[in-house]
Amino acid sequence: MSYLDKIDACNAWEPAAFVPFIRRGERLGSLRYSAAEELRRWPRQFRVTETAVEWIETPDDFEGCTLALAEVARGLVDEGVIPYLHGEQYPVTAGGRESARCLVDRACAPFFGMRAFGQHLNGFVRTARGIEMWVGRRSADRKLYPGRLDNLVAGGLPHGIALVENLRKECAEEAGMPPTLADRAVAVGAVTYCRDSDRGLKPDVMFCYDLELPEDFEPRCTDGEVETFYRLPVKEVAEIVRETDDFKLNCNLVIIDFLIRHGLIPQDDPQYVAIVQGLRSPLPSSDQRPTPTN
Amino acid sequence: MSYLDKIDACNAWEPAAFVPFIRRGERLGSLRYSAAEELRRWPRQFRVTETAVEWIETPDDFEGCTLALAEVARGLVDEGVIPYLHGEQYPVTAGGRESARCLVDRACAPFFGMRAFGQHLNGFVRTARGIEMWVGRRSADRKLYPGRLDNLVAGGLPHGIALVENLRKECAEEAGMPPTLADRAVAVGAVTYCRDSDRGLKPDVMFCYDLELPEDFEPRCTDGEVETFYRLPVKEVAEIVRETDDFKLNCNLVIIDFLIRHGLIPQDDPQYVAIVQGLRSPLPSSDQRPTPTN
Repeated sequence: MSYLDKIDACNAWEPAAFVPFIRRGERLGSLRYSAAEELRRWPRQFRVTETAVEWIETPDDFEGCTLALAEVARGLVDEGVIPYLHGEQYPVTAGGRESARCLVDRACAPFFGMRAFGQHLNGFVRTARGIEMWVGRRSADRKLYPGRLDNLVAGGLPHGIALVENLRKECAEEAGMPPTLADRAVAVGAVTYCRDSDRGLKPDVMFCYDLELPEDFEPRCTDGEVETFYRLPVKEVAEIVRETDDFKLNCNLVIIDFLIRHGLIPQDDPQYVAIVQGLRSPLPSSDQRPTPTN
Repeated sequence: MSYLDKIDACNAWEPAAFVPFIRRGERLGSLRYSAAEELRRWPRQFRVTETAVEWIETPDDFEGCTLALAEVARGLVDEGVIPYLHGEQYPVTAGGRESARCLVDRACAPFFGMRAFGQHLNGFVRTARGIEMWVGRRSADRKLYPGRLDNLVAGGLPHGIALVENLRKECAEEAGMPPTLADRAVAVGAVTYCRDSDRGLKPDVMFCYDLELPEDFEPRCTDGEVETFYRLPVKEVAEIVRETDDFKLNCNLVIIDFLIRHGLIPQDDPQYVAIVQGLRSPLPSSDQRPTPTN
């Protein structure tokens, strides 16, 4: 296996198997054909064709759209199309989270193929032996990816909370960090990917952070999400990423990005450019930039 | 002006205005229609159609292809299509520089729209006032971009020289660095862009480096490429990038990448994701990955 395999696994989707979800000319999501069919239950709201689902009778304002989608979400749960609601509100946007048109329950985002945003933090220690990285193992009782390895801190970004604040919260909950330590995290970029998951399309943006931790730091999980922590030589982490499926799928990409930025993947690797580009995969969007298909 | 404007300026090209340059099914370049017409002078070698230029009578081996292209290059100079040859040999490749099929004179790469590889180094100093960056001003007598600002060290990558060796050479020539200092540079990724230039298409890969320099380091140019050096607060450099056209076009992108990786562009900037993705623009390639145009 290779780093690129992990990147490709996070970008496995067939554009032809999805139709755009459009509101007033903006592409807010991408629906699988079968998901589009489910929306025929609300014919006044959605025009379902072979090439798109259009939200035709759409409220003008943020609140109205949010309420309308919440009703649809409840309907989809009632019909057993979506197993449960999450309770956390995600932005519905054609761009960044600051240009949200309304909100949707987190559990519905993949059904609609809506963009989701998260934060992932690489916690590491510089030692005389080289960089060592803290990673967590997810608890066995997690709904998603139980028992898999994870970044030291990682979480979804609900609407209406600032990045720095949410990161503090996640750092406290998942690793027992005081805010003074969490605030030392350096924003280092974002990884984007788009994956056809069993719950629908996931066009995701992961905001990435590096946090150099003191030698004596010991993470402590306070919210039950993580079962154990390991502090491993970065080469060992790299090998786990490359050779196994132990990590939660998207966490691999955050670590590969770390390896690239710290000079730990040689630039003469024949896949180097593909790796670097693959960490910033294009997401479905309203205004496609020209793509070099000619 | 914005960071994204600078990225867009480096990615301004219309795929429909170019035809692929194909050898045995591999896309080795992209020719403007007028450039494709010029190749009709060699009808046995190249099949020029409206959709492609195929190198039909192509030698089997590396040397043979290199010689054949060299002859074409001389012909193009004789006809005044290309003003001069550079003398440096660049790889001709559908992928990375390690999978070169043959070589071509550097001055011909844009004519054929062939990938070019370079190395760009951000030289910086950490001070109590924050990060300061060393930048150079190109000499007035340069053929390309005279008088423009430049990264501390930047140069093209000829074929057959290892990255670390070429970087040492460039660090010595352009900034008077001893190899011990140059070797401290950290490989931090690569920026890719594709631009329609007056000389043809430039699908370029810039390997990027960060080098933290000692407080007392003073760059010294030994090859005449740089006229003066400035050490500026990084915020001032960021402003020059954003608000002016002082930097050589592609150097802007290397600095924007530095700003992203050092947390100096806020992640809640509405253009953040577009910036991050724009620094890794797709290049024309033989095997297009699926693009989300549906």
